[in-house]
Formats: sequence, structure tokens, C-alpha cells
Amino acid sequence: MTTSAQDTWSTRPTTDAEWLARAREVAALLSTDAVARDRAGATPHAEVRLLKDSGLVTLLGPVEHGGGGQNWTTAYRVIREVSSGDGSIGQLIGYHYLWFWAARLVGTPEQVAAVEEQATRERWFFGGAVNPRDDDLVITEDGDELVFNGRKSFSTGSKVSDVTVLEGVLEGTDKHVFAIVPSHQDGIVFADDWDNLGQRLTESGGVRVEGVRVPWSQAAGYVDKEFRPRVYNTLNVPLIQLVFANLYLGIASAALTTAAAYTRDRTRPWPYTPDVKGSAVEEFHVLETYGDLQAKLWAAEALAERAAALIEAVNAHPDEVTARERGEAAVVVAAAKQRAVDVGLEIGSRVFEVTGARATASSVGLDIFWRNIRTHSLHDPIAHKRAEVGRYALLGEIPEPTWYT
Amino acid sequence: MTTSAQDTWSTRPTTDAEWLARAREVAALLSTDAVARDRAGATPHAEVRLLKDSGLVTLLGPVEHGGGGQNWTTAYRVIREVSSGDGSIGQLIGYHYLWFWAARLVGTPEQVAAVEEQATRERWFFGGAVNPRDDDLVITEDGDELVFNGRKSFSTGSKVSDVTVLEGVLEGTDKHVFAIVPSHQDGIVFADDWDNLGQRLTESGGVRVEGVRVPWSQAAGYVDKEFRPRVYNTLNVPLIQLVFANLYLGIASAALTTAAAYTRDRTRPWPYTPDVKGSAVEEFHVLETYGDLQAKLWAAEALAERAAALIEAVNAHPDEVTARERGEAAVVVAAAKQRAVDVGLEIGSRVFEVTGARATASSVGLDIFWRNIRTHSLHDPIAHKRAEVGRYALLGEIPEPTWYT
Amino acid sequence: MTTSAQDTWSTRPTTDAEWLARAREVAALLSTDAVARDRAGATPHAEVRLLKDSGLVTLLGPVEHGGGGQNWTTAYRVIREVSSGDGSIGQLIGYHYLWFWAARLVGTPEQVAAVEEQATRERWFFGGAVNPRDDDLVITEDGDELVFNGRKSFSTGSKVSDVTVLEGVLEGTDKHVFAIVPSHQDGIVFADDWDNLGQRLTESGGVRVEGVRVPWSQAAGYVDKEFRPRVYNTLNVPLIQLVFANLYLGIASAALTTAAAYTRDRTRPWPYTPDVKGSAVEEFHVLETYGDLQAKLWAAEALAERAAALIEAVNAHPDEVTARERGEAAVVVAAAKQRAVDVGLEIGSRVFEVTGARATASSVGLDIFWRNIRTHSLHDPIAHKRAEVGRYALLGEIPEPTWYT
Amino acid sequence: MTTSAQDTWSTRPTTDAEWLARAREVAALLSTDAVARDRAGATPHAEVRLLKDSGLVTLLGPVEHGGGGQNWTTAYRVIREVSSGDGSIGQLIGYHYLWFWAARLVGTPEQVAAVEEQATRERWFFGGAVNPRDDDLVITEDGDELVFNGRKSFSTGSKVSDVTVLEGVLEGTDKHVFAIVPSHQDGIVFADDWDNLGQRLTESGGVRVEGVRVPWSQAAGYVDKEFRPRVYNTLNVPLIQLVFANLYLGIASAALTTAAAYTRDRTRPWPYTPDVKGSAVEEFHVLETYGDLQAKLWAAEALAERAAALIEAVNAHPDEVTARERGEAAVVVAAAKQRAVDVGLEIGSRVFEVTGARATASSVGLDIFWRNIRTHSLHDPIAHKRAEVGRYALLGEIPEPTWYT
Repeated sequence: MTTSAQDTWSTRPTTDAEWLARAREVAALLSTDAVARDRAGATPHAEVRLLKDSGLVTLLGPVEHGGGGQNWTTAYRVIREVSSGDGSIGQLIGYHYLWFWAARLVGTPEQVAAVEEQATRERWFFGGAVNPRDDDLVITEDGDELVFNGRKSFSTGSKVSDVTVLEGVLEGTDKHVFAIVPSHQDGIVFADDWDNLGQRLTESGGVRVEGVRVPWSQAAGYVDKEFRPRVYNTLNVPLIQLVFANLYLGIASAALTTAAAYTRDRTRPWPYTPDVKGSAVEEFHVLETYGDLQAKLWAAEALAERAAALIEAVNAHPDEVTARERGEAAVVVAAAKQRAVDVGLEIGSRVFEVTGARATASSVGLDIFWRNIRTHSLHDPIAHKRAEVGRYALLGEIPEPTWYT
Repeated sequence: MTTSAQDTWSTRPTTDAEWLARAREVAALLSTDAVARDRAGATPHAEVRLLKDSGLVTLLGPVEHGGGGQNWTTAYRVIREVSSGDGSIGQLIGYHYLWFWAARLVGTPEQVAAVEEQATRERWFFGGAVNPRDDDLVITEDGDELVFNGRKSFSTGSKVSDVTVLEGVLEGTDKHVFAIVPSHQDGIVFADDWDNLGQRLTESGGVRVEGVRVPWSQAAGYVDKEFRPRVYNTLNVPLIQLVFANLYLGIASAALTTAAAYTRDRTRPWPYTPDVKGSAVEEFHVLETYGDLQAKLWAAEALAERAAALIEAVNAHPDEVTARERGEAAVVVAAAKQRAVDVGLEIGSRVFEVTGARATASSVGLDIFWRNIRTHSLHDPIAHKRAEVGRYALLGEIPEPTWYT
Repeated sequence: MTTSAQDTWSTRPTTDAEWLARAREVAALLSTDAVARDRAGATPHAEVRLLKDSGLVTLLGPVEHGGGGQNWTTAYRVIREVSSGDGSIGQLIGYHYLWFWAARLVGTPEQVAAVEEQATRERWFFGGAVNPRDDDLVITEDGDELVFNGRKSFSTGSKVSDVTVLEGVLEGTDKHVFAIVPSHQDGIVFADDWDNLGQRLTESGGVRVEGVRVPWSQAAGYVDKEFRPRVYNTLNVPLIQLVFANLYLGIASAALTTAAAYTRDRTRPWPYTPDVKGSAVEEFHVLETYGDLQAKLWAAEALAERAAALIEAVNAHPDEVTARERGEAAVVVAAAKQRAVDVGLEIGSRVFEVTGARATASSVGLDIFWRNIRTHSLHDPIAHKRAEVGRYALLGEIPEPTWYT
Repeated sequence: MTTSAQDTWSTRPTTDAEWLARAREVAALLSTDAVARDRAGATPHAEVRLLKDSGLVTLLGPVEHGGGGQNWTTAYRVIREVSSGDGSIGQLIGYHYLWFWAARLVGTPEQVAAVEEQATRERWFFGGAVNPRDDDLVITEDGDELVFNGRKSFSTGSKVSDVTVLEGVLEGTDKHVFAIVPSHQDGIVFADDWDNLGQRLTESGGVRVEGVRVPWSQAAGYVDKEFRPRVYNTLNVPLIQLVFANLYLGIASAALTTAAAYTRDRTRPWPYTPDVKGSAVEEFHVLETYGDLQAKLWAAEALAERAAALIEAVNAHPDEVTARERGEAAVVVAAAKQRAVDVGLEIGSRVFEVTGARATASSVGLDIFWRNIRTHSLHDPIAHKRAEVGRYALLGEIPEPTWYT
């Protein structure tokens, strides 16, 4: 990854097509050494710099403050592009968009405006320490301030971020509070314990939070210490799940094109058969496998696009969204994620069959795709996503909107 | 199927949404006795009447002559809807649109205008006796007339049609000639030999052609006995293949909703398990199966929609379409067809696992979906469609456009 | 099916190899017109006669009374062979063996001896009206006699049998009683309502039972009106389930060989591809598909053989079988059934892809295999069989032995 | 892996059951730190020592010289057991058996006797530098000696072996010559370039051979410089391919049991569903997945056992084996390998779905199974193995026996 990339980006994209072209440039830079960086496992400072220099971090920011003013349809495509260059960095930009957007979902109008302006102007990169499944961050009140203490098992990107979205429970209540805090402060200590099969550069390790103080006024969505919920806040889960789907699709797409290049350049035809071919690319099973995988990938991508259109429809009237509309979008998003996972894993594993034994060399690194998808696709059980879609197909029921589903 | 259906259709739809609503009404009528009509195997005169009375046969016809003036995007959706009511009739309307459109692909401007006007005004239903794989219809010249003689193995819908598209080879040449002739004349004798596993009401049997005469002036695309090809004519194969895909998707969709109704109403929970449920719809495997099948179906549908958009883009400038543009559309269509076939067959077979043993009763008729898709999906080998997509994914090559591929 | 078949069978087989050869002869006779007989749907009197004339009905009977004295390993293979000739008749002989054997599982030693002698000498064909899931046959006492009244939804083979195994519940108790009664008596009225997708000749319709009288002494396993259970009786379910597995494997095997003959003789190579072959049997995807299906079938067969060995081990010491031994056999049987179902359905559907569109003609009848397996494989939900095996693989737990599982 | 393991093995197993028990002990020792050793990637000296100390290296050796005198049925089971402890070491022992046995396949009776005696007495561990696909080792004559020069891309196990089987082509001829040479000599230089996705401890890197001298008398199977082939030598490929199948089955079995232990101990039930369970082991999809995978694995194992029986039948009369008998064994072996690969890869990937996101931690190492199978299963294209079986199923043809297939 050349460090002088930013020199080439003196202009800011204005249309969605330009933003996608920018994302493709970023992906191309990332892909040149994605395998080597994955092996090295170094903290992705340069990669986050690239996301900032390219302007991608401000994609969703208001135009008047220097942002791209783009919608989620574009954001999802950008995530797919960046993920095709490097799955880890695709996850970082995807999560960044989520945390950037989180203000809109739970903040008051004033908070939203303030955060989006500052984040855009200063090109903040967002991390998060949010995992509502475990109530492991406890908040106590100290006058006008809230004090966070505890531990989160996962804090994707926080270590390389400017600000982190913290989530905790107010002691003695069941009130969840979200707040944006500077990532680099004494009270935030990263465990640096992310050492997993894939998505190795996401800095997803745990974090210890000790006495991090946040003014009540910055508790997202709270007015006079009471949470004023918008129906809209329940959209966070579908938004997130579709980020996941696009992450997998981007990785799967890269698996297919990387494998195809290898097959064309290096795979040898099989000599011990009655109908020997002059080249591996003429072998029928090779062509059939590529065709099968490509068709499945295109179908999964098309469904992700359809899901994005539903998200966009909801975003068009955030304050009047009904539970039904939210639910139906969530179901299609869940379906899109299923297809992305199933297809992505199949591609990640079967590409070896059309590249051959020598493609297992570490120097080739063709395993990174399966590893990345396999790792992240376990975020929540796909079987339950299937049941969620099944409940809709069979009974017309939509999933119960909670903080988590 | 009530015969008085036409009474309710005093108005002609004007928007695509209205046409789809009309198609859904037709599908609802067809579905009420689709299984019984399939068993009876009677010639579908009433069904074709329904297609005429509803106006669906004129969907693609010029508005000024009383047609719908709709594009193929709508036509594909209509095919899907009608197929969800009755796969056989879905095939009939799909093939009708193809033959109706054939004039545009191979005719001269004058022929196109004449055919579309007359076909629309008179609500022609089209059949076809076209199968270029076998050169089995020989044409001889007799002055200003062409005389067709021979036999076609398949002539879907001709028997219930007003006009039939004939295709043959001019004796002593390799010139293929297409012409529209009245279906009911002495020289056209139907073999009535269509007795197959599925799509039983399509009247797809063979036909004997004896001395059918056509003026040279009606030989499609011929001017002064020479064929004046348009690049555009090569679009026939992608158009056809996407008709097929939408046929399967409509059938698959009906399989899923029919099964779901059965599961809700009649399937019993399994009692011999440690975790007995009060109802089959609470069994996890039932929910998971429906979710898996629904997600796959949605993905296949979304890809069919994307393919339709590519067809539409080509149709927007039919005379300037490049081989590349045509080829890339053909590849996506081939991919859409693959997904429709794979998903359709899976749904057609697996729905029994979530309905149970009693759902195999002939009175239920849940097998019609698998039978219909299994039968038609063999039209051309899916393995070669996969290879076609594979050649594009691996090598960037598009399929050679011929009369047939 | 020639009616003079019996003439050729003047001798009784003595070894297991001879019995299998006999079963293959029967299968060959059945297969000649299996499709036609399936279409006709006539009551299989001639087929049962064939099973008697060939001696197959006495396979498990004591040698001293003229039986084959064979074990279940041979019986399972015979079922597989007969099923490869005709799935319906394979089910009939399989169920016959189960009912023949039922005496051993629940009868007293005296009952066992008496039944096996008479059944063997008189070449009884057994049917059954047993479906413990529904308590729909009520038994009342009348002195030394039991009187059965009620209705069974399914009574496979009874109509063409000499004797029927009845099962009911003694009024006011939870005692299940099994007894063998003559099938042809006024109190047994067949509903003739079996009209299902597959296994059409099994006469599996319902039966009304009105005042059928059985001496208490013939209530299987009862001594002085008390049931004296043997541990061994819990083996019935694994025995039955492995009959099912072998039924599916026989049908699947026939699907593959029937399709292969068709492909060799009639399938045409695909002409619209860069690498046209001279024959369909040279197409790589055809070879690959046959190889994939054959490998899967062989694996499923091998597992069925392993399961049979476990059954045989239990049969070697029927009165000392432990719950654990029974349970572990049951789990492997459940696994064998899963593989047989999955592989059988896949073969039944995919054979069309290597035979082609014309193989869907009703005259070919290639659909009979999928229909037969699809129909019977729903006997009990395969998902719960998977969970049963999963409980063992994950937790080491064996299924609870009951009358039913 | 404790280094004092050998202390416990003062006795030599005598029966096949005892040998299997010994293999299980070895597997248990290996499995304790298989993941850590895989990560470290150190040359497996201690592991080979374990194979020697346990006696497993002499399993096939003559009893009179201190060997186990076992047959290949036992050898295959031992390979499966060792592979379940550590896939790399399973490959090493499997290849060792092949090279040990190679003398029998190509040697003269005198060579066979001499090699087996010395190898057994001295507990040789065999490596090999054989890859007939590339003619990259050239042999020149120098009086009574042959001189090998060149390079082999793969030489599994040679580096940790006592002797290596070299294979080359006599210059100016098409004569392949095999010979056993000491692995540690100046003329054999290991490239130490095996750095691949899986099977990381197999020392499968390349080797440079410079002036390695072998007396003509040790050229396997040559008498007076002429090769006297036995039909039997063509059995090498089926033997090898079934080693591969058992390697994959052993790894897959370990994947399943390792995952099951994790699920029982550490996986949490999913809380966001209408039917929350108290434990992950009660989730239906978890049970169903384990059951599905276990059934598939059992079926693949059963087929591998059947294939071994065919190999054993051939070994029972090695000098009279017919091409047909050899070919039919080869086809079943090819089928067994297919099932082992397909099932092994599926298990290796799907176990994550029933263990959960935290099971992707490097410390868990659950990915080693997929990596190992994925890497080795590419040895030769599975698609061509399918076609090989397909040719038999469809046409009754057996594969052409060559040095390689």
C-alpha cells in the first residue's frame, strides 16, 4: 500500500459514481498487499489514514461541512468495494459508517447536527465498544456527568479511531446510554487481544474502561436524563446486518476475481484424462464452477441491492417509519445476509478447486477470503436469521424490534 | 376457473402496477383449480380465453391499437404472476409474448407495424413451431409463395392459438425463414402427443405441416428474397431464456405459498422429541427451512429483475446494440436462469419436508410445482449455461450470438 | 410382468447369495412394466403372487417349515433388490418382513413358534394396520375375546394380504395390543383411499375395523392378560427405519441405472458449445454428475450395510440386549436413513439433467423414482432423525426407546 | 506432546485391535498440542520419533523381523486414527506405509524381502521424492551405478526420514526407475520451502538431488537392466488414493469431536429468539447440524471400509490380479475419496456454525481441520475423480491403469 496515495486525491467526489470510483481506487491500493498485511497483523494506522485521505470517512457527512452527502445505498456499495480490496478494512469503514450514523438513530436533533458537523469537518474515524448482549459497562452518575466503568469483549476499530461510541447501563436501572468519547484517553485501555482466524486487522479486541466521564448532555437521545426514543432507532439492526452482507459480498467478489486471475495465469490442465485440454481455462468443470459461483454471487448482490432500497425507503421518512415497514426491511436484510454468508463461504472454499494444489501456498494467500467470511459471519447465528425469515414467509410475522434484533 | 371472469374486466389497465394487478387476478382464478385441470389434461381453451379477456395478450401491443404499450420488464413480471397461478398457462403467455415480439426482432419495419396492429386489435394468441436445432421443415418456392412441409417435434400453444410462427429452411440453402400463419388450416395437423411429467396444459406436442403457403412478402425480414439482418435479432435467445427464468420463479413462489398455507392449516407438530411444540409452525426446522427457501427465492428474483433491466437497456436502442452489450445481458440472463432452476427445484422438492406425509395425497397436488419446473428446466442443459457464465467470469468472453444461443 | 414366472422357480434358494439372485430375478420381472403398473394403479395381486411364488415371503421363516432361515442382513438386501425393480413392491415385501418378525419382538415363545410355522408353511403375506401415533382402534373385552373397533388411516398391504397385524388400545387403559387376524373378513373394510404421489401400488389406504374378534390367547405377548415385555421389543423402530433406508436405496439405484441406459441410448450431445462432443456420454458434466451420484449412493449403501451389522449383532442375543446397544444401533440406523433419503431425492431429481428434456415424457416414466422416495421419506420428519443423531454425536445420548422411536 | 511417551510402550501390539488402540494412544498424544505445533511449524522430529517408538512404523513389516504383519485394512484405520490426532502426522505415516509397500509393487521378490527385513528391523521411516507428473529427475548410467540429478517439487517427509524413495527417468529412455536411498547424504538438499495453508508439518517442500548414486541392483523391479513388471504394480494409485481418503476422514472426525467438546463447554445459547434455550446443546439447529454432519461422516467412513475390503481382496492374490479387478477397486476408492473430501470440507467449515464467533480465536485453532483437508484434497482434481466414477457408472469403463492413475 503506497503511503503517497493521498497525493492523488486533491478533489472530493461529488456524485455516487465518483464516490464508487474512489472506493475502487482505495480497494486497488489495499489489495496489492492485503495478504502481507494480514500476515503481519500490524495495527492498521496507514489503512485508516487512506480512508481519511480518500475522503471515504465523510461519505455520509453533510455536504455543507465538507461531507459527501451520500445515502446508505452508496455507503453499502462503498463497503463492498473496500471489502473487495481488504476485508478487514471493509469492516472498519462499515462500522465507521454505523457509528457515524448512530447519532441519527438515537440522538436528539441538536446532538445529530453537532456530531455530524464536527465529525465531518475533522474527518473523525469512529470506533465502537458496543455489545448489548453483555451488560458489562456500568455507568454511575456524578453530578452532571456520567462515569463509565467496566469491560467490553469487542471494540472494533476503537484503537485506530478518533472517537469511540461507548454503550453502558446506568447503575440500578435498565437504561442503556450511548455516548461518543475520545478514543485516546487514559480511561480507555485496549487489551490488544484480537488474534482470530480472520478479519485480523480490525482491532476487534477487548477494551477496559476506567472512569471515562461524559456530560449528561452528550448521552445520546437523553433530554433531562430521560430517553426520548424515536421509532427510527430500531433501524440500527437492519442497517448493521446489511453492512455485514455487503462486507461478505465484497470479500467473495475478490475471492472470485483473484482465483480467476490465478487460474488463467498459473493453473495447469489435468493430463490424466481421455480428453486432455491445452489449458485449464478450457476444462469444462473449471468453467462450470466459475459460472455456478458467479451466478450465485450475482444473485446475492442483487438481493443486497433490493434490501438497500428498502432501507433507503425507510430513511426517506425516518420519523414516520412503522413497525411493519421496519420489520419487512429487516426480514429482507436478514435474507440478504444469509445469501451473502452461504455464497461467500462456498466461494471462499471452492475457488481452490479451480486453482489447484499450488494455490495453497502461503505466498498466494487465497485462504484469506474464507477466513475473513468464516470469522465475521458468526457474529450472530445464521440459523436464527433463517428462522426470522421463515417466520415471515410462513406466518407473515416480523421480528420484534429491540435494541438488538 | 370461473368462465364469467371476463365480466369483471370492463376496463383496460393503463399503468404497469395495474397490469400486474390484473395478472394477479388472472393467477388467482387459475390457481383455484390448477391441480384439477393438470390432472384432466384438457386442451386449455378456457385458459387462453381468460388471457384474452383479461387483456394480458395485448400487454406489449401499441397503445394506439388498444394494447398495453408495456415493456418487457412488465411482461416478465406478468409471466411470473401468471405462472404462480398455473405454470402451464404462464408458459403459454410467456411464449405468446415471444412470438408477438418476434416480428420486431426479425421483421422489416413495415411487417412489424402491420403485425402488431392486427395482433393487438384482434387479440391474437400466438403459438410457435420453431426449433432450429432440427432442420425439419423444408420450404420450397412456388412463384411468389413459399410452401412449408415437414414436421416439428414441439409447437407450444399452437393448437390453442390464432396464429403460429413457423420456421423452416429454404430448400437447397441455409436460409431460415420465419412467418406467421393462421393456426387453423388444413395443412397444420397437431399430433396431440404432449404427455409429459409437467407443464401438461401447454399443448407442446408435435405438428405436421403439409403445403402451408406464405407469400414471400410475409417472410419475416426478407426484402426481395434477401434477409436484411439487424444486430438486434440476436437478442431473441436472452429474451427467451429470461422468460424461462420468470416462469420457474413464478412456479417456485406458488410452491412456497401453497406449502405455507398447508403447514399453517394442516401440518401437525412432531410428538416424539424432547421438545414437543404445540404447532408445526413453532418447530425450528420448519421455520429455518422456510427462511432458507424464501431467501434463496428472493435472491433469484432479484437477479431476474437485474437481468430484465439489462434487457430493457438494450431494448432502448435496438438498432445500435453492440455484440458486447448483447453478450453481457445474455450472461446475466443465463445466470438468472441458473438460479431460478436450482432454487425452483429445491423448493419444489423440499416443501414436502415442511408439510409432511399427508401432503403427498393426490388431492393436495403439491407435486405440480416440482413436476413443472423439472420438465421445462431441461429445455437446454443448465450445465452449459453455467459454462457460459463461467467463460465470462473467468475469461471475460461473451457467448457467440447465433440463431440459437 | 409375466404371470408364468413361478414356473421357473421349482427350487428353493438355500444360501444368502441364492436368495439375492432370486430377489434380482423378481426385480427384473417387476421392472419390465413398473411404470405401466404404477400408472394403472391396480391392486397388486399378481405382484404379491410373484413374491409368494418366488419364495421371498418365507425368507425369514424357519428352515424346518420350508422357510429360508435367513437373517435381516439378507432381508435388507432383498428389500433393496426388489425395490430396485418396483418401489411399491419393495415396500410391500419390507413391511411383510416386519409384520412377520413382529411376533418375535412382542410375542411369547409359544406364539412366535406357532406363527412362524404356520406363516411359513402357508406362505402368508402379511399386512398391517398399526399406527401408534393415533389411538384410533379401541379394544373391548368380551369374555375370552378381544373386540377391535375403529379406524386406521394407513394399512399398508392389508388388502392384498392373508393376515393383518392389528394394533389397538384396550379401552380404559393404556395397554397396546397387537394381534394377527385374517385380512379377509366382514369386520375389515378397506377404504381404498390411497391415491398419493408415489408408492402407488402399496395399498396404503385406510381401513375400518368393526367387531373384529381375537382370542386373548392371541394377544401378542400377553400372558394372563398381562403384557410381559422383552427388552428386545424396543428394537422394532430401528428395524423398521432400516427397512425404509433400504427401500430408498433400491429405488435410487434403479433411478441411476435406468437413467444411465437412457443416456447411453437416447441422450444427444449439446451442439451449441465450443467443444461439441460426438456423444452425450463424452460430455464432462454428464460423467461428473453420474460419478457424483454414484459415489453418494455407494456411501449411503455402505452405511446401510454397517447399520445392518449392528442390527444383526443385537439379533444374536435378543434377550440380553441393553438399552445402550439398542440405542447405538438406532442412531446408526437413523443416520443410514438420512443418507438414503438425501441421496435418493438428489438422484431422483438430478437424473433428468443427464438424460434431457425428452426424458420427461410420460412413456419414459423416469419420475417414478423421485415420486416414490419423496412420498415415503416423509413417514417421519428427517429433521428429527438428524437431531436424534446429533444428540448422540454431541452429547452421547441415545434416543429414548418407546413403542414409537 | 510428552517426550517420555515411549516409556509406556514396552510391548508390541499383536492383534489389529491392539494396533488400533496403539494408534489411538498416539493420536491422543498428538492432539494435545497439534494446534500449537502447527503454528510453530517446526520440523516434526519428535513426532516421527513417536511413530517409531509406538511401533506404528513397522505395522506392515513381517512379524519374523519384529513387524506387525498387519494388512492394509488395519493400516488405513491406523492412518485415520493418527490423522484424527494430527493431520500432518497422519499424512506422514500414510505416505510412510506407501513407500514401505512400494517395494512389493515394483520390486523383485529378492528386493522385497531385503527391504522389508531391514526397514522393519531398523524401524526406518520412509520419505519419498516421487511425482511422475513432472519428469524432473534425470538418471544417467555410470557402470553398475545409476546417478540421479535434478529437482522434485514435493518430497513429503523425506527431511525427517531415514530413507527416501527416489523416482526418475533414465536419460534417453522413457524408463522410470524407483530406488530407496539414504535420506541424509550430501546429494540430497532440501529446499525447506513448504509453507502452505495446511498440513504444515509434513515437510512437503522441494528437494534438489545432485549425483545421488544407486547400484543398478537396487533399481526396483529391474533385472539385468530390464524392468519386469507385475500387473500388481498398477495398484499403487488406488492404494495411495485410499490413504488420502482416510487422512481426510481422520481429520474430519477430529473436527467433529473437537467442535462438540467446544459446543458443550463454551457455546452459549442464542438469547434473541422467541424460544430461548438454557443451553446451546438444546438448540434444534445445533443438534440437527451435528446429526447431519455425523451421518455424512459415517457414510463416508463406511465407503472407505468397503474400498479397503476391495484392496484387501486384490492383495490376497497380487500376482493374478486382473485389470478389471484392479479397475473396479480403483473406482470405489475414487468414490470413497470424493465422499471424504466433500464431507471433510463441509465439516471443517460448518463446525463453526455450531460453536460460534469466539471459536474463531487463534487459541482455539478450530480452523486447522478445514485448512488441512482443503490443502491436501487438491492433490489431484476431484472433478476428474468424479468423471472416473461416472465413466464406470454410465459405461462400465474402468480407468486406464498407468503409473499415475
